[in-house]
Amino acid sequence: MNETELKTIINSIDPASRSAMELAERHQSELAKPPGSLGRLEELAIRIAGMTGNVFNEAEKRRIVVFVADNGVVDEGVAVTPQDVTLKQAVNMTRGVTGMSSLARFFGDETRIIDVGIDTDEEFEGIINRKIRRSTGNIRSGAAMTREEAVAAIGVGIGAARRAAEDGVQLLGIGEMGIGNTTTSAAVLAAMIGADPANVTGRGSGLTDAAFYKKVQVIRDALAWNAPDPRDPVDIIAKVGGLDIAAMTGAFLGCALEHIPAVADGFISTVAALCAVRLCPQVRDYVILSHASRELGYMLASRALDLSPLLALDMRLGEGSGCPLAFQLIRAALAVMNNMATFEEARIDDGYLDEIRRQANPAGKFGGV
Amino acid sequence: MNETELKTIINSIDPASRSAMELAERHQSELAKPPGSLGRLEELAIRIAGMTGNVFNEAEKRRIVVFVADNGVVDEGVAVTPQDVTLKQAVNMTRGVTGMSSLARFFGDETRIIDVGIDTDEEFEGIINRKIRRSTGNIRSGAAMTREEAVAAIGVGIGAARRAAEDGVQLLGIGEMGIGNTTTSAAVLAAMIGADPANVTGRGSGLTDAAFYKKVQVIRDALAWNAPDPRDPVDIIAKVGGLDIAAMTGAFLGCALEHIPAVADGFISTVAALCAVRLCPQVRDYVILSHASRELGYMLASRALDLSPLLALDMRLGEGSGCPLAFQLIRAALAVMNNMATFEEARIDDGYLDEIRRQANPAGKFGGV
Repeated sequence: MNETELKTIINSIDPASRSAMELAERHQSELAKPPGSLGRLEELAIRIAGMTGNVFNEAEKRRIVVFVADNGVVDEGVAVTPQDVTLKQAVNMTRGVTGMSSLARFFGDETRIIDVGIDTDEEFEGIINRKIRRSTGNIRSGAAMTREEAVAAIGVGIGAARRAAEDGVQLLGIGEMGIGNTTTSAAVLAAMIGADPANVTGRGSGLTDAAFYKKVQVIRDALAWNAPDPRDPVDIIAKVGGLDIAAMTGAFLGCALEHIPAVADGFISTVAALCAVRLCPQVRDYVILSHASRELGYMLASRALDLSPLLALDMRLGEGSGCPLAFQLIRAALAVMNNMATFEEARIDDGYLDEIRRQANPAGKFGGV
Repeated sequence: MNETELKTIINSIDPASRSAMELAERHQSELAKPPGSLGRLEELAIRIAGMTGNVFNEAEKRRIVVFVADNGVVDEGVAVTPQDVTLKQAVNMTRGVTGMSSLARFFGDETRIIDVGIDTDEEFEGIINRKIRRSTGNIRSGAAMTREEAVAAIGVGIGAARRAAEDGVQLLGIGEMGIGNTTTSAAVLAAMIGADPANVTGRGSGLTDAAFYKKVQVIRDALAWNAPDPRDPVDIIAKVGGLDIAAMTGAFLGCALEHIPAVADGFISTVAALCAVRLCPQVRDYVILSHASRELGYMLASRALDLSPLLALDMRLGEGSGCPLAFQLIRAALAVMNNMATFEEARIDDGYLDEIRRQANPAGKFGGV
């Protein structure tokens, strides 16, 4: 994908259907319950109606795409985990034994593990090769990648969403794996919203104080060296981001293009959603945040999106591990919308009980308690 | 059930198994993830190990018991909904078309709708008759029921949990239906924790300001007239509670007795859980709070239990509608515990990739993205 093609795609993304949302809202108001009493389940069903353009929806074919890439910035010692865990955990995902993939397997969610930049030339069964390059550069003293590479990685994400649409996927979760990517995503967020790196930097998989301050300094240096243009998300991603963030950004764009509800995972995925929304504001209509990350920047990122996560379970695993959980809440929201009786059907009126009255059944037809 | 039998049951409730919890915690620490990174999913799996005494558990046979009863206090105008909606919605639950029951049907959770005090002599298909009496008395100017009736209703709840154990139920949700029961549960909570009625009274299904202040006054009057003993939950339930609250209290006791994880729904169910815990502190080990209610007293009740709800989705429907959602999170917690690889199995070591290396597969065996 080149920049002209990307622009064309961005220009063809529709906002959510207001008329479908209005019809869905009307249906919610007709369901036999106190108005608004199902809270965010109502909101979800209405938003998804807007995304698909259909008042009633299902989420029975679900997929999680995980974009995997290495980050040159690990040379700075910003991560506690060795770099080759990127590849090892990607392999473990194909075996369905990581946090995200064991949940996905259990709930019947498909997974697609997509290599956009693992630092290896080898290929592994079940890992889809869409590698743009082996790892990014070290952002502390150079760009992560070229602008062309960033656009190409965004194209991989768009392609993954298009493929999901072809396959009839009704709900797409967007996750990542890449040692060092809490550093790159914090750098991207700081550049994009003009935040102090200390306020958006988390402790990743468990940094000490000293390592945390070093991580903040690395991000400060990366932003100073690269001076990304805050109004140009592609420039930011290319200079201080990562191939996983680029591909996830593309996946959010692609979901909006294809009218598929896109479920963000934690901090990194939510930063990518924000990149996509900055490239095309309509994308926001298609984004659902699964769970609140404990990373410090998460609140700023979700606030910039003006979206609230569905879950707050103190998770900080990444991979897309919040997606299988959010998927079940989304299924619930759609089940209520599809299956609950309206006031008319529930017949909460005087004639209702007359009709269903039957012979007394002292033993209780279905037996005891 | 009489009071002696109830005391015998209370005395035979075990605390959770500390040894099973320790083994579960050790297993969690061996799973291939940063320590604690699955947050409350880890906590849930560990707590459930303590409840059942088994390190590994499933929650594939799930049931929601809904105790239905009328409340004499509706004569005071404390509810916006007509009293006969108690019966009508109970009937609708048997049809699977209410909020809770449509979710339960969708997710494959069994439901048992149990009449402990609906104000009718008729019986309806699918509603299990365990009626103690037709409605309670008006608590503003008398007791809700006799102490014997309260104990008998608690016995119905214990019986429901015992029946669930016989049926192999692995997770029991505890819900209610009864117009006026936000008033009775607020009165019970105020009496039990010594709170001002204004601080524990919610707006139920949508009261105006005037109706809200009236509801608070009704609760003040009920507490003044009945003067329940704050150290005696049975006295509180009998004097200012309801048959649904009594039966739910029994269900929480019964779950603890039978080592079944008990899932509370919103405010009313959580107040009943607190009654059960006050009767027998070990019961707390078996209680899981599903979702935070918007009713004002909820925070006080959950704080008194020292438990946090799993979900906060702005729901205020009752019925047990939070249980099917919490059930899926609990399934997820157990799936991770059961299916995720340990560090040893994940083999995040140098030899791992050598073993699984294979011939290069440029097309990607599973096709494109």
